[in-house]
Amino acid sequence: MSDGVLSKDGHDSTPGHLHRLVLFSDAVFAIAITLLAIEIHPPHHWHGVADLFAQMGAKLTAYAVSFAVVGVCWFSHRRVFARLERADGGLDVFNLVVLGLIALLPLATELLWEQRGGEAVLIYIGHVALIGLAMGLVWAYAAFVGKLTQPMPVGEAVFVLLRVALLPGLMCGLTIFSLVKPWGWALLAALVIGLNLIGRRLTPKSTQEAAA
Amino acid sequence: MSDGVLSKDGHDSTPGHLHRLVLFSDAVFAIAITLLAIEIHPPHHWHGVADLFAQMGAKLTAYAVSFAVVGVCWFSHRRVFARLERADGGLDVFNLVVLGLIALLPLATELLWEQRGGEAVLIYIGHVALIGLAMGLVWAYAAFVGKLTQPMPVGEAVFVLLRVALLPGLMCGLTIFSLVKPWGWALLAALVIGLNLIGRRLTPKSTQEAAA
Amino acid sequence: MSDGVLSKDGHDSTPGHLHRLVLFSDAVFAIAITLLAIEIHPPHHWHGVADLFAQMGAKLTAYAVSFAVVGVCWFSHRRVFARLERADGGLDVFNLVVLGLIALLPLATELLWEQRGGEAVLIYIGHVALIGLAMGLVWAYAAFVGKLTQPMPVGEAVFVLLRVALLPGLMCGLTIFSLVKPWGWALLAALVIGLNLIGRRLTPKSTQEAAA
Amino acid sequence: MSDGVLSKDGHDSTPGHLHRLVLFSDAVFAIAITLLAIEIHPPHHWHGVADLFAQMGAKLTAYAVSFAVVGVCWFSHRRVFARLERADGGLDVFNLVVLGLIALLPLATELLWEQRGGEAVLIYIGHVALIGLAMGLVWAYAAFVGKLTQPMPVGEAVFVLLRVALLPGLMCGLTIFSLVKPWGWALLAALVIGLNLIGRRLTPKSTQEAAA
Repeated sequence: MSDGVLSKDGHDSTPGHLHRLVLFSDAVFAIAITLLAIEIHPPHHWHGVADLFAQMGAKLTAYAVSFAVVGVCWFSHRRVFARLERADGGLDVFNLVVLGLIALLPLATELLWEQRGGEAVLIYIGHVALIGLAMGLVWAYAAFVGKLTQPMPVGEAVFVLLRVALLPGLMCGLTIFSLVKPWGWALLAALVIGLNLIGRRLTPKSTQEAAA
Repeated sequence: MSDGVLSKDGHDSTPGHLHRLVLFSDAVFAIAITLLAIEIHPPHHWHGVADLFAQMGAKLTAYAVSFAVVGVCWFSHRRVFARLERADGGLDVFNLVVLGLIALLPLATELLWEQRGGEAVLIYIGHVALIGLAMGLVWAYAAFVGKLTQPMPVGEAVFVLLRVALLPGLMCGLTIFSLVKPWGWALLAALVIGLNLIGRRLTPKSTQEAAA
Repeated sequence: MSDGVLSKDGHDSTPGHLHRLVLFSDAVFAIAITLLAIEIHPPHHWHGVADLFAQMGAKLTAYAVSFAVVGVCWFSHRRVFARLERADGGLDVFNLVVLGLIALLPLATELLWEQRGGEAVLIYIGHVALIGLAMGLVWAYAAFVGKLTQPMPVGEAVFVLLRVALLPGLMCGLTIFSLVKPWGWALLAALVIGLNLIGRRLTPKSTQEAAA
Repeated sequence: MSDGVLSKDGHDSTPGHLHRLVLFSDAVFAIAITLLAIEIHPPHHWHGVADLFAQMGAKLTAYAVSFAVVGVCWFSHRRVFARLERADGGLDVFNLVVLGLIALLPLATELLWEQRGGEAVLIYIGHVALIGLAMGLVWAYAAFVGKLTQPMPVGEAVFVLLRVALLPGLMCGLTIFSLVKPWGWALLAALVIGLNLIGRRLTPKSTQEAAA
């Protein structure tokens, strides 16, 4: 995009390609996160608040986990896109794969609350891990193939790739594990703090703030 | 975010962090408010307009109350975010809690119209009060911990905190109370006018307009 | 909003009040228009395309009418807001009433296709007329009470009021009438052309383009 | 729109007409694409992952195809609107027809997975082809009637018309065909590559990037 056209698109008339891609993705994230609750209905009969929460506990827990998952994926998505300078057709396609998996999360959440434990949990964690990998593809394409990013050291680009690709699956797995074994939370906290420390060492100060 | 990067993000390519957070939140508010009506269906049999409204009265009342609740929460959210200058990861997390509670409102509304009176109403008001408290957390974090706001007197920051945290629950409780005891409306009006008067005294003129 | 704050909000960090109100309203319009189709499902048994359309005809017609209605309301809303220079709390409230009625349209559409003819049609047209009146309230508040508009002649402001308030109900009534009596389309065309001619005479050229 | 008003609208207060139209359309696309999954529910009984996927295969395939269809339509829409410089009432109307057909895609998808093969597939492909034609109408109106585009050679405008109007139907038809006959993928690849080559020859470099 030439500069003249860019400033024109960005400001006055049509938003530019990257801008429109971000807004479109945000809308899909927002709709998917809000639809998580749409299949939850109150039970037909309940006696008192305690009974109500007892009957709805599985659904509300699954809702909270999925809400956090979409939140983490949205953070990752924002992190990736804050480092991009432009978009192209390949980015559109890989990003669409991420959105297609995000839009399936309400379905996976339903699976989760209908069959707690066992295979449903594994499928759910696998689904979230797949979202992370797809997001890793978006970043790998943008940083290494399409050259869509601001210039950055290779080490930093690889660290972003690993964080974006592995974090959703790891955090989701550890969160569900922590619901059973409380000391899982400590593992989760260690993971988040550790990644932040590595990130701080690798990333120069200015980029850090831009990508916060 | 350095100025250069900021203006670049804001204008031409990716919207900045705070901007994207606001747009994402607005989308969730808009979807939740529109989904409030989605579980309302016309009755199978009805004879004349009066009968139709008689059969649908409970649902439409619950819809109107919830619509006003989301509206008030959106106003509070706009008020808080108009005073922010930047965003960080902590703000993301606390804001996500608010959005997670907002997205549950269609469920709470369904509870409200299925069991009018009694415990369902209390749960509903409790839910709305919780949204207010979560919004208070967002503000407390932004103003006192993350230092994300424009500089402002402590008194004003505390007033914003109280208003944001307590208003949704109070207004919702008084509105539902007023459906039973009409003089509740006078109390509600007094609350709104009183808060506005205090707000005007505490807030310098320029900030008032920015945060209107 | 002081100019400095305005340009800051609009560009770099939080979008300004009016901007956020427009985006929020657009999202509600977009969601309501897309949800119109969500309660339409294919019939369980059908034999050939002709049979499928025969079975779904009533629903698809109601969908098309409602889609056009939301479209017309969105045009009116854009027209009104293109003439505003700023927003205030009163505008928020009146606009929320409009959005609350728009979000009920999927419900009214369901009513329409379940009971074609008779009272359901009248309730539907009444609902749409109510949306127009609510939009008229928004404009009347903005132009005459809150003084939120660009300066304009009173005659023009009154014309906008009448067009915004009456057009949705009239167009919807005439469209449904035209499905029964084909010469209704001529009446509808005359209405649209007539209004455009009056509008062109009343409005100076520059404003016309800004509000197109 | 005069320049002064334009920059004002675009930046500080209300977004301009074209900008608002694009955001509104994006929201409808995003909602339609996310709603594709909403009618998919897990089966009541399933034994192991293989059985789950066997039972849900038809739905997930239909979902993937429709997701790709909406994606392709969104790309086309972005391509068309990136070449526009302003909007008018006619563009609003033709664009609304496109959105009305997009919002019906979840219904057509449901049709697709309930009756695989035979007439449902033909109706689905016909629906997608219709979206392409409606998008072609948008472009034909913008380029040849409303003169809303940046200046461009007639040959290029005609090529854009053909690509926008025919691509969705062709790609959808070939994709579904490829699910049955694997060599259909080769045809699809040839189509995409061929169009890109013609496009590159016809379009000057600068416009290509702006419309990428």
